[in-house]
Amino acid sequence: MAAGLRLDEIVASLGGVLQGDGALVVSRVGTLQSAQPGDIAFLANPKYRSQLQTTQASAVIVPPQFAADTQLPRIVHRNSYAYYARVVALLNPPAARRPGVHRGAVVHSPVPASASIGENVVVGRGVHLGENVTLQPGCVIGDGASIGDDSLLHPNVVVYDRCVIGRRAIIHSGAVIGSDGFGFAKDGDRWIKIPQIGRVVVGDDVEIGANTSIDRGALDDTLVADGVKLDNQIQIGHNCSIGENAAMAGCVGIAGSTRIGRRCTIGGAGMISGHLELGDDVHISGGTLVARSLIRPGQYTGVFPLDEHAEWLHNAAQLRRLSRLVERVAELEKKIKLMEIKS
Amino acid sequence: MAAGLRLDEIVASLGGVLQGDGALVVSRVGTLQSAQPGDIAFLANPKYRSQLQTTQASAVIVPPQFAADTQLPRIVHRNSYAYYARVVALLNPPAARRPGVHRGAVVHSPVPASASIGENVVVGRGVHLGENVTLQPGCVIGDGASIGDDSLLHPNVVVYDRCVIGRRAIIHSGAVIGSDGFGFAKDGDRWIKIPQIGRVVVGDDVEIGANTSIDRGALDDTLVADGVKLDNQIQIGHNCSIGENAAMAGCVGIAGSTRIGRRCTIGGAGMISGHLELGDDVHISGGTLVARSLIRPGQYTGVFPLDEHAEWLHNAAQLRRLSRLVERVAELEKKIKLMEIKS
Amino acid sequence: MAAGLRLDEIVASLGGVLQGDGALVVSRVGTLQSAQPGDIAFLANPKYRSQLQTTQASAVIVPPQFAADTQLPRIVHRNSYAYYARVVALLNPPAARRPGVHRGAVVHSPVPASASIGENVVVGRGVHLGENVTLQPGCVIGDGASIGDDSLLHPNVVVYDRCVIGRRAIIHSGAVIGSDGFGFAKDGDRWIKIPQIGRVVVGDDVEIGANTSIDRGALDDTLVADGVKLDNQIQIGHNCSIGENAAMAGCVGIAGSTRIGRRCTIGGAGMISGHLELGDDVHISGGTLVARSLIRPGQYTGVFPLDEHAEWLHNAAQLRRLSRLVERVAELEKKIKLMEIKS
Repeated sequence: MAAGLRLDEIVASLGGVLQGDGALVVSRVGTLQSAQPGDIAFLANPKYRSQLQTTQASAVIVPPQFAADTQLPRIVHRNSYAYYARVVALLNPPAARRPGVHRGAVVHSPVPASASIGENVVVGRGVHLGENVTLQPGCVIGDGASIGDDSLLHPNVVVYDRCVIGRRAIIHSGAVIGSDGFGFAKDGDRWIKIPQIGRVVVGDDVEIGANTSIDRGALDDTLVADGVKLDNQIQIGHNCSIGENAAMAGCVGIAGSTRIGRRCTIGGAGMISGHLELGDDVHISGGTLVARSLIRPGQYTGVFPLDEHAEWLHNAAQLRRLSRLVERVAELEKKIKLMEIKS
Repeated sequence: MAAGLRLDEIVASLGGVLQGDGALVVSRVGTLQSAQPGDIAFLANPKYRSQLQTTQASAVIVPPQFAADTQLPRIVHRNSYAYYARVVALLNPPAARRPGVHRGAVVHSPVPASASIGENVVVGRGVHLGENVTLQPGCVIGDGASIGDDSLLHPNVVVYDRCVIGRRAIIHSGAVIGSDGFGFAKDGDRWIKIPQIGRVVVGDDVEIGANTSIDRGALDDTLVADGVKLDNQIQIGHNCSIGENAAMAGCVGIAGSTRIGRRCTIGGAGMISGHLELGDDVHISGGTLVARSLIRPGQYTGVFPLDEHAEWLHNAAQLRRLSRLVERVAELEKKIKLMEIKS
Repeated sequence: MAAGLRLDEIVASLGGVLQGDGALVVSRVGTLQSAQPGDIAFLANPKYRSQLQTTQASAVIVPPQFAADTQLPRIVHRNSYAYYARVVALLNPPAARRPGVHRGAVVHSPVPASASIGENVVVGRGVHLGENVTLQPGCVIGDGASIGDDSLLHPNVVVYDRCVIGRRAIIHSGAVIGSDGFGFAKDGDRWIKIPQIGRVVVGDDVEIGANTSIDRGALDDTLVADGVKLDNQIQIGHNCSIGENAAMAGCVGIAGSTRIGRRCTIGGAGMISGHLELGDDVHISGGTLVARSLIRPGQYTGVFPLDEHAEWLHNAAQLRRLSRLVERVAELEKKIKLMEIKS
């Protein structure tokens, strides 16, 4: 844990307005409810406003409209949640990097002195490694690939040849960037492989989760724009294009050649079919399968509502006769209309 | 394959009541239907009771209520299925461990003489390794992590720093324990990373499947209790808590901060949203998305029933007009009521 | 990129009928729409027929019925899409293999001189490696496993002991073949592991995607027949049998002991429950959960139709009362029938 920082040191680093004792030292961040003395807590959701009265925290981060709600030493900032994120980073600096190439690594390309290349890493021929790149043990970087400045690859990440990773990437263990897209032509009963000769090109400030895979393009490239955040166990098919600052939760799948707009979010296990377009600011609920393009911004959902199993059985059975039910209702309407006319 | 064991040797090891020739040697376990002479079969599901008459097995494991159904040499035990599991283990002991540190491993922490550390394993600084730990080739154990006695990590498992694995764990290849949780604060269009400083703490007797990932907590820890069994391709989000002896089939996803009770089971591809609570003994059917807390024990389901595509098209189209259909039925009811009153 | 090939060289290699200037050199393949001068394009889908008039391509591949639609030099072939796949392969030969065993590999079995064993590969005892096998860095092959001629394993693939991979396999990074099936017997509250002593046996010409996992059988083997194509992030449970030339898109899960017929296709995120049978030529739409056997060929679907979230809320709420709605309609029908009789 960190040794702690004074509130006025935090404000000097991160901005915001200090109210109260700037000499107060905090060493940890907590929620209003869980924080202990010595901690700094934050109010981001107005729903928890009343906890400002009861928190054990020694200081708080609050947005201006709630600054008067507490007598605690406080930092006032418009976006208290983002401020909290930055304070956590400030109080918990990453472990010191160890520049240099471990003797167990096998490196076939030039390495900047600032790079840190761990045990058993393999770097192919013609690879470009930026300044301060960290490749943790077991990473494999294919021939002709490129990793931008300040990027961090956790253990056992694979980047296939010619793929491009931008600056400040964070890629978690088991992620695979640049595997072949799933492309086959039918010839009689058999499948003929279509060689996948495109690349994956990943922009700056992208995070890619554990065991996520991104396929290389068939002829053109698969594109992941700046600022995209991908959680674990995600699959991105060949020739997809993911717009700036889009974010996807775990277990999402995007089939080939689909374009995802800027700032889109896709909830866990959302699945997007191939050759579709999602416009900017489209949000897909978790567990939803998207089988048509969605241009208009908004939240979209398609999930079977959960029920006790016995109830579900009853309703699901009827669902397969829904079309017939609609016909029955239409017949009733016709008959009633007739009776009304008669009477 | 095993050299075989006498029935009385099995009973001496595992208990149960022997009926018939204890000197009979069996060398393999099979189902009643597939077993050959020399095999021991088992009856666990009463549905297969009649197969006791036709099985080619040389011996059987049966529960007491069916012991009189067969003349074969038999072992009678209340839980014939668990007994079967133990007989398979007895007849198929694991390959001999090779204690010692392979010269190709890179180990920065003390290793007990009983541990087996394979080729290209990397063990960081300040790691605690228990007795009889086996780390197969390519595993990477981060600084400050801990692996309990008798645990087995198959090739290419990654345990991030400070994470804790209990005793007798079995972790399959490609599993990732302790990757960063998916935590970001929005700042304008961009996402600010919230450093994930919690750990993953895994209890005793836990099995974790191939390519499964478990994220570390944001501030607190992600917890996996004793006896939990996780299949392949599972995603556990940050700050989740999985109760004792819970079991999850392949492709399940649990979003962040959700609590799963003891003995819960989640069928394949079940998805649980974040910040929910599932009480003890809640069972979720495969393919079901859970978007609200479920406290009461029971089986819950929410799956669109499959149909031939053309039929599905008809019914699914109506589903989007279901609300309108309900209104139409209500109107009909009102009209009929009126007619009944009039007549 | 390739130096290019003359059309008559292509036809000499791949067959088809040449119409026009055989000396024309093409160096890349493109779609009719994206192709540039120097490229060869293809018409596979009649929907794009009109693009034959506007394409910038220097040559095209066309089926006989559309050969007269263009004046461009062309190759006429019945299956223009499979032909396109083969031309891409011809123009983009794989990087030259480097036969030999890298000094950083640890190999406990004989290796044919034609094999290429990369950095940090571990090959166990009693392993059979065929001619021209390529094991890229970080692969781990368990004791007694077998890899057929001409197979290519990308970095960090794990094949557990005794598993069998056929000829000409392509296996992508992070794939795990032969992890334990998910088999446990309940004993009170606890789960007793059932040792998984079967194998995975994979036929010839199989491709397996990144981070896909295939579990070994409990007693018998898990079988993947010749020509099967599996995309990324797929989970195949123990004792499954996948028929010849079946294909599955990303994120599919097949639970244990299920049999998939020949030429079946399963769309992305399709999930098949355990102990089922899918007949030959059964096609499952993406996102569909299959909970019963499907013997008859055809396309099957079960997906909740997506809607704007507010609309979905309305309709989904009614869905849980569908059974009651059906009763209400039946009551109305009875009342109307009565009125009709009376009147």
